[in-house]
Formats: sequence, structure tokens, C-alpha cells
Amino acid sequence: MSGDIDFYFDFSSPYGYFASTRIEALADKYRRTLRWHPMLLGVAFKTTGAAPLPLVPLKGEYSYRDFERSARFHDIPYRRPPQFPLSTQLAARAMLWLQQSAGSAQAVGFMHAVYRAYFVDGADISQPDTIAGLAGALGIDGAALLEAASSAPVKDSLRTEVENAIARGVFGSPFVIVDDEPFWGFDRFGQLEAFLRDGKI
Amino acid sequence: MSGDIDFYFDFSSPYGYFASTRIEALADKYRRTLRWHPMLLGVAFKTTGAAPLPLVPLKGEYSYRDFERSARFHDIPYRRPPQFPLSTQLAARAMLWLQQSAGSAQAVGFMHAVYRAYFVDGADISQPDTIAGLAGALGIDGAALLEAASSAPVKDSLRTEVENAIARGVFGSPFVIVDDEPFWGFDRFGQLEAFLRDGKI
Repeated sequence: MSGDIDFYFDFSSPYGYFASTRIEALADKYRRTLRWHPMLLGVAFKTTGAAPLPLVPLKGEYSYRDFERSARFHDIPYRRPPQFPLSTQLAARAMLWLQQSAGSAQAVGFMHAVYRAYFVDGADISQPDTIAGLAGALGIDGAALLEAASSAPVKDSLRTEVENAIARGVFGSPFVIVDDEPFWGFDRFGQLEAFLRDGKI
Repeated sequence: MSGDIDFYFDFSSPYGYFASTRIEALADKYRRTLRWHPMLLGVAFKTTGAAPLPLVPLKGEYSYRDFERSARFHDIPYRRPPQFPLSTQLAARAMLWLQQSAGSAQAVGFMHAVYRAYFVDGADISQPDTIAGLAGALGIDGAALLEAASSAPVKDSLRTEVENAIARGVFGSPFVIVDDEPFWGFDRFGQLEAFLRDGKI
């Protein structure tokens, strides 16, 4: 058993962001190839009947507290963004296009930049200008990225990615599947590491 | 800051059961008094719009897997019960009555017996016979317990307990509040311990 690690995430998910800061070290340590899958939680929520956390009575208020406390507990930079949640279609499409056209390293660099911009700097990552600016800082042509991200093939790619994720049982962010074993949530990373180390739990 | 630990749980919650096997050691270690609060998740779910886990598409199937894997990971005896979820009103009322009439030690003994009967032995703890039998094994008069548990004052007590819990923001099981800091889920026990140790996170 030494399959790839599939890492599913939504750009508006704080727990997805937290997990994105740790998953590469885990993959390296256990010599697994990491595959990044930007997805849209909103589509999965239609299947599960879930609502965005902030909109849920009681749980919403608790969640904001948990985001901040979990960040401190795990020593991850985090500031509550002014817009939350927000649309992540553009960021997801941009990353897919980078994966297809520029290769994994540049796409992963872009992913980290988008997550940091949103959850540390409070940028509105639903805006084309923000996405183009983040790309530009990485040496990517922002105008070309925006044009590609709104093209029909890239839109289709994201739709297919999301459908495939839901077909595999993905319903939250982060969601990791490795050797057919699913792990939902950054709070399952202890179990994920035990599984990678021992091949079972 | 050295207030009591309020521990809220539903008898049909696997994560509540897992947490019930660990919370006493934490309270002892950090010299806090532990207050047990049986509650009814179904009432809280009406506030949050949540559904019992097994009924949620995708998430339900994952949850069964997570119950078993989390039990193995934390080395807690667990077998998937044949009835799940089930009504826990009777068990909660019985525990409240024991807390009021027999004292904390007997009530806590009963709580552990009920959780074990359900999540290890597969007993149907919604049934009066089961509850009376578990009480009897602890030297409690089962018939008297059943009669008291269906009395108006005990029913009112549970209603009040549940209302108070929701008023404090409790929406899941287990849910711990200590020094006004809320912790939802057995997977926050690492953060709970850090908070008890350091007085902050």
C-alpha cells in the first residue's frame, strides 16, 4: 500500500487552510505523492444538506472561536477574514488551469499564496483583481490566468473535479483519501499520520 | 480561574461515550470538579438544523467508519450498536434522578454502565427493562428508578437541563465548558487539556 495522497479542499475553508500548511510535510515524511484537488464545498453541501458554518445557529458562533483557537494551538498564522465565506470558483479554476498548464509546483505556490492572502491578510480572493495580483507576484501572467479561468474547458474541469470528489464520498474540507481510507478534517491528521506510518489504525 | 468542568453528552453519541472514558482523568489531573449533564441532542438539532449523523448522505457512511477508527486509535472498547441512534430520554431522566436522589458517584457509575451497555454490548438502552437491569446490577432499585424517571418533576428537570444547555451554546456531544471556554467534540480534548494546563490557548 503506497498510493498517492488525495487532498481535497475549498479555498474558503479555514480547516482546509490549516491542513494545507501541514500536508506536504506528511507526504514527504512517508514518501507519498500528493495530489491537490480544489473543490467547491457548496456543491457538496447540496448533497449532504449542510450549510456554511457561520450561518448555523450556535455552531456558527462557536466555529469562529474554534478557527482562532485551533490556529493558535497549532501555531498557524490566522486572522479572521472580513468576508467569510465567499465564492471560491475563480480561485479553484485558476489553480486547475495552473495544474494543467504550468505544472504542480507553480499551482501549489499559487494555492499557498491564495490561502495566505485570505486567511492571514484578509484579501477578498473572490475578486479577479486579487487573483491576478497574487499570480503576478509569482511571475504568472495575471491577465492570461483570468482569461483561462473563465474559459469553458476550465469550467468543465472544475465541474468534473467536484463531481469526482463527491462520487468518492468527499463532503467537507479538508478531506484526505489515501489507500482508499478517508479522513475528514484537520483534526484527523493524527489518525492520518498513524495510518501512513503503520498502514492501518 | 479554576471553575468546574461542565460535561454535556447524549447517551446515543459515540463521541460522547469516548469522551466519558477520559474526562474524569483530566478533571482529576487539573483538580477541577466535574459536573455531568445528560442532554438530548435531538432538541439541540432543532435549533441548529442538524440531523443525526447516520441520516446524512456521504457523511453518515463516513461517520460509522470514523466511530470505529477513532475507538481503535484511542484504544477504547467499541462495537457498532444494532440500534443507532435511539431515544435516550429514559436514560437521561434516570441519570438526573440518580444525581438528585442518590448522589454523584452512583449516577456516574450508572452513566458508565449505560454507555458500555450500548456501545460495547449492543444493548437497547431505550428500553425500560434494559435500564432497570443496568441499575439493578449497581444495587439500585430498578422499579423505583423507572417510576421516578417517568415522573413529572424528573421530566421537567431534563427539559430544564436541555434548555440551559442550549442557552449556554451547547449544540453537540460531547460539549465541555470550563471557565466560559467551550469545547465541542472529543477531538478537541487536546485543546481542552492545554487550556486546563495553561489557562489559555
